[in-house]
Amino acid sequence: MADYGKLAQLVMDRCDELGKISQSDDCLDRRYLTKEHKQANGLVGGWMQEAGMQTWQDEAGNLWGRWQAADPDAPRFIMGSHLDTVPNGGQYDGMLGVITPVTLIAAMKEAGVRLPFHLDVVGFGDEEGTRFSSTLLGSRALTGQWPASWAEVKDSDGISLAQALKDFGSDFASIPNAAIATENLLGYLELHIEQGPVLEDLDLPVGVVSAIAGAKRFEFNITGMAGHAGTVPMNLRQDALCASSEMILAVERVAQNHGIVATVGRIQNRPNGVNVISGNTGFSLDIRSEFDDKRDVALDEILMELDAIAARRNVRIERKATHAADAVHCDAKLQGVLRDAIEVQNIPVHTLFSGAGHDAMAIADICPVAMLFMRCDKGISHHPAEAIDTPDVAVTLAVLNHTLQNLV
Amino acid sequence: MADYGKLAQLVMDRCDELGKISQSDDCLDRRYLTKEHKQANGLVGGWMQEAGMQTWQDEAGNLWGRWQAADPDAPRFIMGSHLDTVPNGGQYDGMLGVITPVTLIAAMKEAGVRLPFHLDVVGFGDEEGTRFSSTLLGSRALTGQWPASWAEVKDSDGISLAQALKDFGSDFASIPNAAIATENLLGYLELHIEQGPVLEDLDLPVGVVSAIAGAKRFEFNITGMAGHAGTVPMNLRQDALCASSEMILAVERVAQNHGIVATVGRIQNRPNGVNVISGNTGFSLDIRSEFDDKRDVALDEILMELDAIAARRNVRIERKATHAADAVHCDAKLQGVLRDAIEVQNIPVHTLFSGAGHDAMAIADICPVAMLFMRCDKGISHHPAEAIDTPDVAVTLAVLNHTLQNLV
Repeated sequence: MADYGKLAQLVMDRCDELGKISQSDDCLDRRYLTKEHKQANGLVGGWMQEAGMQTWQDEAGNLWGRWQAADPDAPRFIMGSHLDTVPNGGQYDGMLGVITPVTLIAAMKEAGVRLPFHLDVVGFGDEEGTRFSSTLLGSRALTGQWPASWAEVKDSDGISLAQALKDFGSDFASIPNAAIATENLLGYLELHIEQGPVLEDLDLPVGVVSAIAGAKRFEFNITGMAGHAGTVPMNLRQDALCASSEMILAVERVAQNHGIVATVGRIQNRPNGVNVISGNTGFSLDIRSEFDDKRDVALDEILMELDAIAARRNVRIERKATHAADAVHCDAKLQGVLRDAIEVQNIPVHTLFSGAGHDAMAIADICPVAMLFMRCDKGISHHPAEAIDTPDVAVTLAVLNHTLQNLV
Repeated sequence: MADYGKLAQLVMDRCDELGKISQSDDCLDRRYLTKEHKQANGLVGGWMQEAGMQTWQDEAGNLWGRWQAADPDAPRFIMGSHLDTVPNGGQYDGMLGVITPVTLIAAMKEAGVRLPFHLDVVGFGDEEGTRFSSTLLGSRALTGQWPASWAEVKDSDGISLAQALKDFGSDFASIPNAAIATENLLGYLELHIEQGPVLEDLDLPVGVVSAIAGAKRFEFNITGMAGHAGTVPMNLRQDALCASSEMILAVERVAQNHGIVATVGRIQNRPNGVNVISGNTGFSLDIRSEFDDKRDVALDEILMELDAIAARRNVRIERKATHAADAVHCDAKLQGVLRDAIEVQNIPVHTLFSGAGHDAMAIADICPVAMLFMRCDKGISHHPAEAIDTPDVAVTLAVLNHTLQNLV
């Protein structure tokens, strides 16, 4: 095989080049069905062609490249990730999972490797969901899960998804043709930056993903009694912010005890005056685990604790469930191949779950999926400071090479 | 003496009538040096004249009424409070402390009572400070504490205080004439609704104020590390909101332990997204006690605890002192007379401090001050729901009658 260090540098250079395509001069911002989407597909499609792959764009604007097996009736294996970004995003989230396999394939072919399956690489047009309200538009088109109602979903400029597809040269009515056949489909493997600090904390370049966590979300409303900060003694207060503070710490403590993650990320306090006791707060809860039952046991405990705090402090608590999704588990056999490929590099194998959503979540509906996480700097993503190390890319290339050659 | 029940009803009716004078059709809103200020002075001045009092308006727009003693060289005693309101305020905060003594004086005179001092009742034009930036403008004019720089302080319409005085028929240059002589000045007694729930909680109509608390205020800034709610494990987080929650509970606990009041009334959380771990918060602290040393001991403990929480949670804490005022103590002799007057009514004497500011704070610079608090419904003030009970007014009238007749 080629020199992984050199290949890794090429991956880094390509990420830099792709990262320049942005609808904003100030930051990286590349959204679905834009001029920049088309430009990105053109650039990455060019690298695919350089690697000797057949390329095409599907009805949803996803970019495809195929490394054809000798046998035209061979099964199909897909690698990929997304080519869109959030506004003011980073240049590795998504793109790394498209550029790396394309770059590797060129080297594998040059080294004379042949695979017993067609290896497709897909660059999804939308995962972040920044332009239209729903996420995973690209991967959901592959699974035939676009409801008709989406035609009229509008972006912030009032342009409908149907119109945006038309402007892109496609057609909403032809979207079902983007759905792929599931027979002879071996599986899907997605390389992605971790977007969290676990691998960095363990000093590991890569890790195997066990599952993509399912999240539940709630909004809480706490009503106490506003009052004058000087005139109401502590024992006569019904301070909504103090009650909420105790609840936030209960969320944190229960999550720690159960080994899940739970977050109060948003809080509003009313009337929010320096000399006024809080009369009302609203706060969010986001709770996730790779195991839905574990998450739900922790959730029950949190809800019970919150009710008890409200009762003891004589404040009213109301809650509203706003979101619920179950976890998606990665295929055991594919995980095993990834683990072996890491072990071969003399790297300790660490298995972790993904707390963030990924295209693999959607693809899991039609075939076995797996994900390989790569360490990223301080766990930062969705930010210009998103960064990875070239040596980690080299390790990743070696792991993927071994994985692909031992897949079947 | 007259029937206190009937007198109390007259006080209530007068509060209702005065409460109709508002610059807003939707709520009670009466600010300094407005047409409505003038109207209120006219209405209350009429009641003073009905009571046979001499009336005048001073250079700051404060309304005065005098019940002349037989001896023109007799000393002077002042009762009073303010006639202005906050926007959407109540009709007893301030006004009760002007209307009650005026109504009582008429009855005392009718009953043939003579006092060995001139009894002045003052209705201050501004206590709330809603129109211009500073509070207590009326009472501070009596103490000669208007700095020259205030001439150009502007209201929200860009009208300067000097111009507003001119429009009102006064003159900024003549404000020093509103300062009163301190020789022969016996003291100042202010009746006010409690604006807190203590008397209601104890089922008492009135209470003697020991001191007006001094407040210290701070702004805190807590910096942790923002992160993805799904991807950062609990043990790797530096959650600014969790840290702040622990701090808010520490403030509450220390205040309880030390028998003072401390309040976090305002909080801002950033980036405040449902799926983002809090990276930064800002919150306020307001801490008050009738004893400055007690307050400062508690404050030191709070600041130490907050630093310890920040260190343990690996977040940065910054603080800024934004306000500091010492407590004003009520005169011991005047408090004693009030206590005796309450005891005579067979009512348990309760002494409490005022957590809110009052005109008496300013007047304390020139003479002994005292305050009598009257129970108000649920401790609510600065709100249309502000309410008092007529029987409590009757008790208050009896207490004030006894107080005035036993003052010297």
